[in-house]
Amino acid sequence: MNIYLSGEIHTDWRDQIVAGASGLDVVFNSPVTDHAASDDCGVAILGAEPDKFWHDHKGAKLNAIRTRAAIEAADVVVVRFGDKYKQWNAAFDAGYAAAKGKALIVMHGADHQHALKEVDAAALAVCETPQQVVDMLRYVLNGTLPS
Amino acid sequence: MNIYLSGEIHTDWRDQIVAGASGLDVVFNSPVTDHAASDDCGVAILGAEPDKFWHDHKGAKLNAIRTRAAIEAADVVVVRFGDKYKQWNAAFDAGYAAAKGKALIVMHGADHQHALKEVDAAALAVCETPQQVVDMLRYVLNGTLPS
Amino acid sequence: MNIYLSGEIHTDWRDQIVAGASGLDVVFNSPVTDHAASDDCGVAILGAEPDKFWHDHKGAKLNAIRTRAAIEAADVVVVRFGDKYKQWNAAFDAGYAAAKGKALIVMHGADHQHALKEVDAAALAVCETPQQVVDMLRYVLNGTLPS
Amino acid sequence: MNIYLSGEIHTDWRDQIVAGASGLDVVFNSPVTDHAASDDCGVAILGAEPDKFWHDHKGAKLNAIRTRAAIEAADVVVVRFGDKYKQWNAAFDAGYAAAKGKALIVMHGADHQHALKEVDAAALAVCETPQQVVDMLRYVLNGTLPS
Amino acid sequence: MNIYLSGEIHTDWRDQIVAGASGLDVVFNSPVTDHAASDDCGVAILGAEPDKFWHDHKGAKLNAIRTRAAIEAADVVVVRFGDKYKQWNAAFDAGYAAAKGKALIVMHGADHQHALKEVDAAALAVCETPQQVVDMLRYVLNGTLPS
Amino acid sequence: MNIYLSGEIHTDWRDQIVAGASGLDVVFNSPVTDHAASDDCGVAILGAEPDKFWHDHKGAKLNAIRTRAAIEAADVVVVRFGDKYKQWNAAFDAGYAAAKGKALIVMHGADHQHALKEVDAAALAVCETPQQVVDMLRYVLNGTLPS
Amino acid sequence: MNIYLSGEIHTDWRDQIVAGASGLDVVFNSPVTDHAASDDCGVAILGAEPDKFWHDHKGAKLNAIRTRAAIEAADVVVVRFGDKYKQWNAAFDAGYAAAKGKALIVMHGADHQHALKEVDAAALAVCETPQQVVDMLRYVLNGTLPS
Amino acid sequence: MNIYLSGEIHTDWRDQIVAGASGLDVVFNSPVTDHAASDDCGVAILGAEPDKFWHDHKGAKLNAIRTRAAIEAADVVVVRFGDKYKQWNAAFDAGYAAAKGKALIVMHGADHQHALKEVDAAALAVCETPQQVVDMLRYVLNGTLPS
Repeated sequence: MNIYLSGEIHTDWRDQIVAGASGLDVVFNSPVTDHAASDDCGVAILGAEPDKFWHDHKGAKLNAIRTRAAIEAADVVVVRFGDKYKQWNAAFDAGYAAAKGKALIVMHGADHQHALKEVDAAALAVCETPQQVVDMLRYVLNGTLPS
Repeated sequence: MNIYLSGEIHTDWRDQIVAGASGLDVVFNSPVTDHAASDDCGVAILGAEPDKFWHDHKGAKLNAIRTRAAIEAADVVVVRFGDKYKQWNAAFDAGYAAAKGKALIVMHGADHQHALKEVDAAALAVCETPQQVVDMLRYVLNGTLPS
Repeated sequence: MNIYLSGEIHTDWRDQIVAGASGLDVVFNSPVTDHAASDDCGVAILGAEPDKFWHDHKGAKLNAIRTRAAIEAADVVVVRFGDKYKQWNAAFDAGYAAAKGKALIVMHGADHQHALKEVDAAALAVCETPQQVVDMLRYVLNGTLPS
Repeated sequence: MNIYLSGEIHTDWRDQIVAGASGLDVVFNSPVTDHAASDDCGVAILGAEPDKFWHDHKGAKLNAIRTRAAIEAADVVVVRFGDKYKQWNAAFDAGYAAAKGKALIVMHGADHQHALKEVDAAALAVCETPQQVVDMLRYVLNGTLPS
Repeated sequence: MNIYLSGEIHTDWRDQIVAGASGLDVVFNSPVTDHAASDDCGVAILGAEPDKFWHDHKGAKLNAIRTRAAIEAADVVVVRFGDKYKQWNAAFDAGYAAAKGKALIVMHGADHQHALKEVDAAALAVCETPQQVVDMLRYVLNGTLPS
Repeated sequence: MNIYLSGEIHTDWRDQIVAGASGLDVVFNSPVTDHAASDDCGVAILGAEPDKFWHDHKGAKLNAIRTRAAIEAADVVVVRFGDKYKQWNAAFDAGYAAAKGKALIVMHGADHQHALKEVDAAALAVCETPQQVVDMLRYVLNGTLPS
Repeated sequence: MNIYLSGEIHTDWRDQIVAGASGLDVVFNSPVTDHAASDDCGVAILGAEPDKFWHDHKGAKLNAIRTRAAIEAADVVVVRFGDKYKQWNAAFDAGYAAAKGKALIVMHGADHQHALKEVDAAALAVCETPQQVVDMLRYVLNGTLPS
Repeated sequence: MNIYLSGEIHTDWRDQIVAGASGLDVVFNSPVTDHAASDDCGVAILGAEPDKFWHDHKGAKLNAIRTRAAIEAADVVVVRFGDKYKQWNAAFDAGYAAAKGKALIVMHGADHQHALKEVDAAALAVCETPQQVVDMLRYVLNGTLPS
């Protein structure tokens, strides 16, 4: 089963899921999580832009080559919203995945519940912790519940 | 041409676009913009929920009947990000529209430029004002530029 | 908005919805609700069958010309499960509609809640009465809640 | 060839098919057939719900992650209707599979013939026993008929 | 309801259906049924070809502009096989319609039953006469059976 | 029938087709054919760009709102290649239309035959004059050939 | 590259292609070519039918499980029309493959040219011999022409 | 990741990319780049044509078997426009890839910037050198930027 881990890149939630899912028949993909590389990839390869809009535009499109392919290939898209920042790209990915008919799992803290209600409404599961994602993947794949 | 106006519901940007586009061959749709009705529609019709999550869940899904149909029917989806709030539903709609191959126009102030770079990267136009949306619609439909 | 009313054919729930939705910008479709005609249409037009399986087969396929086209054309599919009978065709329609990405509303009494959990899980709304369907359609179309 | 075995979970029909198909180039998938785990998976991982509807809702959606992916991946969907229970999820799966253009095989006893006529009408084969499914798979793959 | 009448062009079966369906809410389309025009349209407009293959090729492609659009637009595709000729274009249209998920009605005499078994297997109805097509359309649209 | 007229914008071939098709049941669409407006629309509405690449980029994307919608809506896409310029947008439109399954008519002079062989290979008709397009539309719609 | 070999089953054309393509990176699939098994498979597994129509119907549908999956999986569909019989299933497969956007190669003798013009018009290549199919596959895969 | 290298065939840009991407998890495909074979493949295998149009037509269609399959299979389509020739097939491929939702990278010199603005507008990256393509692929796959 192919899992795409979208969203927040400032904590180690992806590592926790990958470690927890050790031994399961899953393949994980994610965006580039090196924040500086992700921001500057466009101009680093395709040439500098004096205007910040186009600087960002080149980078965002280059990153989209990776993220669109990964969402298309995914059976399950997990989107995590962290405590900080606007994280509109995470919500964009959730909408993109929903429109493609992907199984959507949303992970966020209770304080974001109301603001994320439309995103949660499109999900097959809403959770708070990486361990819950691991437990779900194990159940979905092997039918076993946490003891 | 069918236009869906998604996103921020606290200013009169939709009214400005509709007024400005008077005379053009366009049909506009939008989400329910009555904030209270939008929040409580689920429980008002389908029964109260003691848990806020399910209260919101029922409402968000009921609103989705309208918004999904409207995005599917749209040729152009305009998504406006205002100054306040998380507005994750706006970014979700943008991702949904992009995945469905809809022409996407994003409207936001300069201060949100970096945070919206992935959303902007999926758009065919990025603008700041309702007048620009009107000008684009007039050009797209009639081929005439603002004088 | 195009609404398909699928499922139970022994009570007047469709009439109640159509009457209640008077004045709304909706078009309703439904299967043939004349039970005898629905059962015998195949052999009546295409010739008798001594084997009940093929008798039913001819009829079910002929009815499918109507129901498939109606589901395809629908924005919203309402599926009602009544108190009696297996009603597997209703659940089949719900699955068909879900796979086609249609907005699904399921209507049933509380006693069927557990048995219909997979069907309800695919729905954007679960309700019990025709009045609730009318209220949802009015809200979805006009944004007004029942007073 | 990828085969999804949907429906009744109280007899060993899946085991019989898997055993009988030994040596054929097939991969079988199925829902979680541990009834208790299937009913409670949602709350076990995602937290308890006082309301039975949401208890079931969480579980049904979590199970849908597995079943939707399995139906999407399948070349053939076999749906068995047993003697007992409403089995609306089986009919839902059949409708879902039909809408996705999957080859559908329906298995049920003669007493359900009339009630399942719409489901049977969407199938490429209707049979009564696991052995018949095995014989069909062998024929479809190898072209050999039972002697 | 949009009906495409494909196949045999040497008898008046289309006229019989159109006349019989008078008063029903249907729109009929058909290929160009002027045999000489259909054969020579390509070279008549696009220039002569010394090689019969390309003469026919130009015409067949020009006719495809009409037939493909008509099948795409159709809810129901009726394909009639007459007594004579190979009629491979009729079987091609049936396959094309089946792959597009169109409701397929096949009309042919009993002597062609075995040769058409694969085509019939993809149909929702198999009949012999234009009157049966009319009766089916009336039933599908209005729910009334022939008296 | 909906016809999109793509490609060369320096001669009056569109006017000839529209005039010739007078009385036929067709709707014509085209790109904005005012060359200056088409080149500068992006910066005129969305703000000036010092870099020619982004100047053109904004314009090309704004024009794409019109052209993509028009190709999607079209039953037939006519692409004309004139004598001058690279006309890569015309070939791009042809590829786009082919991938969307649109009926493609290509119009060009004999001198471009070899260079356009891949584009012609995807077309249902290849012609040289507006009159031929009119003759094809009349035949496709009415079945009548030029006398 | 996945190749489906559809159509005539009375000569060894498939064997010639498979032998000729030895060493190429291709996988071949075909329908069941044992005529008797293909005709009787339905009743042999699913029970006898007194009516020849349903006898054939059961068999044709069972064969469709194999053929539909094979066409879906194919990159190239080769359809051969032999000298005898109606071969409507071959033309049906060609139409089905064309509608699915598969690359279509048609093989037939010169005497069938006119009758197959609509089928040929949907093909990317029309040929007469198995050797030509092998030569095309070698060219398509390796870029080498027959010496 | 599957990469299709479309367009100009007179320089060694493909070799440079393949060599530069050594060690990356990519599979490259390309059209037949032997110009003479590509031009004459149709008649070499399927028989001579006295008319150059059909000579080219046979070849272009045969090449399309390879190129369409390769674009369908690709995650990323790189299209290079060289200094010479019309290269309409390159622009056609770009349009085809865009319509199929493929990630598009366009490579061309600065002198073609204005003429390619519509093609560039559909791309996720526009570059000038094979090294830039290699750098992008490495970043997209491994997240590492050129040092």
